[in-house]
Amino acid sequence: MSKNVTLGLIQMQCSTDPKENLVKGLKKAEECIAKGAQIVVLPELFLSHYFCQGPKDKKYFDLAGPIPGPTTAAFGELAKKNKVVVVCSLFEKSQAGKFFNTIAVIGVNGEVMGTYRKIHIPSLPPDFYAENYYFEPGSETKVFKTPYATIGTLICYDQWFPEVARMATVQGAQILLYPTAIGWTPAQLSSRGPAEYEAWQITQRSHGIDNNVFVAAVNRVGQEKDLKFWGTSFVSDPYGQVLVKASLDKEENIIITIDLGVIDEMRREWPFLDERRIKVENA
Amino acid sequence: MSKNVTLGLIQMQCSTDPKENLVKGLKKAEECIAKGAQIVVLPELFLSHYFCQGPKDKKYFDLAGPIPGPTTAAFGELAKKNKVVVVCSLFEKSQAGKFFNTIAVIGVNGEVMGTYRKIHIPSLPPDFYAENYYFEPGSETKVFKTPYATIGTLICYDQWFPEVARMATVQGAQILLYPTAIGWTPAQLSSRGPAEYEAWQITQRSHGIDNNVFVAAVNRVGQEKDLKFWGTSFVSDPYGQVLVKASLDKEENIIITIDLGVIDEMRREWPFLDERRIKVENA
Repeated sequence: MSKNVTLGLIQMQCSTDPKENLVKGLKKAEECIAKGAQIVVLPELFLSHYFCQGPKDKKYFDLAGPIPGPTTAAFGELAKKNKVVVVCSLFEKSQAGKFFNTIAVIGVNGEVMGTYRKIHIPSLPPDFYAENYYFEPGSETKVFKTPYATIGTLICYDQWFPEVARMATVQGAQILLYPTAIGWTPAQLSSRGPAEYEAWQITQRSHGIDNNVFVAAVNRVGQEKDLKFWGTSFVSDPYGQVLVKASLDKEENIIITIDLGVIDEMRREWPFLDERRIKVENA
Repeated sequence: MSKNVTLGLIQMQCSTDPKENLVKGLKKAEECIAKGAQIVVLPELFLSHYFCQGPKDKKYFDLAGPIPGPTTAAFGELAKKNKVVVVCSLFEKSQAGKFFNTIAVIGVNGEVMGTYRKIHIPSLPPDFYAENYYFEPGSETKVFKTPYATIGTLICYDQWFPEVARMATVQGAQILLYPTAIGWTPAQLSSRGPAEYEAWQITQRSHGIDNNVFVAAVNRVGQEKDLKFWGTSFVSDPYGQVLVKASLDKEENIIITIDLGVIDEMRREWPFLDERRIKVENA
């Protein structure tokens, strides 16, 4: 049975100014909504440069804020007005004073439906993705039942860990969303760059295949210090086919309508969820 | 640190005559060894047609035998004489009278080092891969420490389940070997065929990426009743790059030397095993 949903994925360049990035993100979300998007997804930590490269610096903790907070309020207004869902990646400072790399999912009434805190926190190479200095790891996968689809929210480095894709699917996810900040370091560009770039796409497409779900990756673009972010935001279907893919280096909104009916169609022929025999569990 | 190992993968057509298939398998293994293969891999259930399609029939249980048994003895002689490892997929009848889809790993002294019993047993579509009628599921992943490499043995449908790839890797596998019997049913050929064919490759390559290991798939070729097996045996590296790929429809031996040193090199840059946070466990 067909059930269409339209995604709006924002591939953007981010500056060092949170206010500027918020205004830009809101504007791009409006563009997506104008073209029919029902679920809008922003890239990882879009309110700032990706600060987890270069010397570790306590000043970056100033970028963190509470959830709900001003950013979710701004997107909440937009969501409520347009009856859309917004998937918003933020640097969270919790009430208890801990810091997380977090997604807030904002529902069609403008409320924060809940949060997902990134489980897999990279620490290598030491000067490029040193996230363990800034973020506590989360411990639970989360899915959000919206009027348009049940979405599973994961973040960037989670991409390389099939366990969390499986867990979100088992919880009911029909689409796995990966807000991302990934690119090449100078060393990578001159050695394994092309292989790593392809691997990043293959592993995400495979999570879609193994779970019979859609996958959407939303990356930033631009050069920040030594990291060149590689864009290439994309959507793949439950067979792992890439339905749409953005450029390596330009800001773009991806607007795509997908048919969730493919999920059940595939599960009748390849019932991986039904026939899996190994449990995945929080460590 | 480089450590080379040479694989010999036998992509073959199988007849209904076990004796003929045994002779052919031995001959092809000798061809691989003559070209330098140190680990020789046969396709899934190569001693017979893939009998799990069409009407279920008790007569096929006659194809099962004990391990060790005559087939492992024949390959054991070859292995001992040439100091090679043979990965041999067999229909096993256990001492307790249970039936399994099993790999016997034969070591360089000709001995059966141990067995792996296929964990994921397909039951759909009912007339094409009705393995649950014939096989009990196994319950444990296995790896085998040979003089050339530590190999993890998985079988066909296991390909779609990242959990078992992870478990074998955690046990020490450097190469995941997937003896296989997969192809298109008439319905698939006329609908999702190309997507399924590509998905089969993507998911296996991704297991290599996510675990930083090599992957080798060894399929049969030929038409048997309504199933057209699609060959395409291949080897991919820890970055998911396909190093070699056989044809869709011809018998071929793949002989390839791979450098296991790439595994540790990759794990220094992308330490997925070290940074994973979710356990996989027998259900």
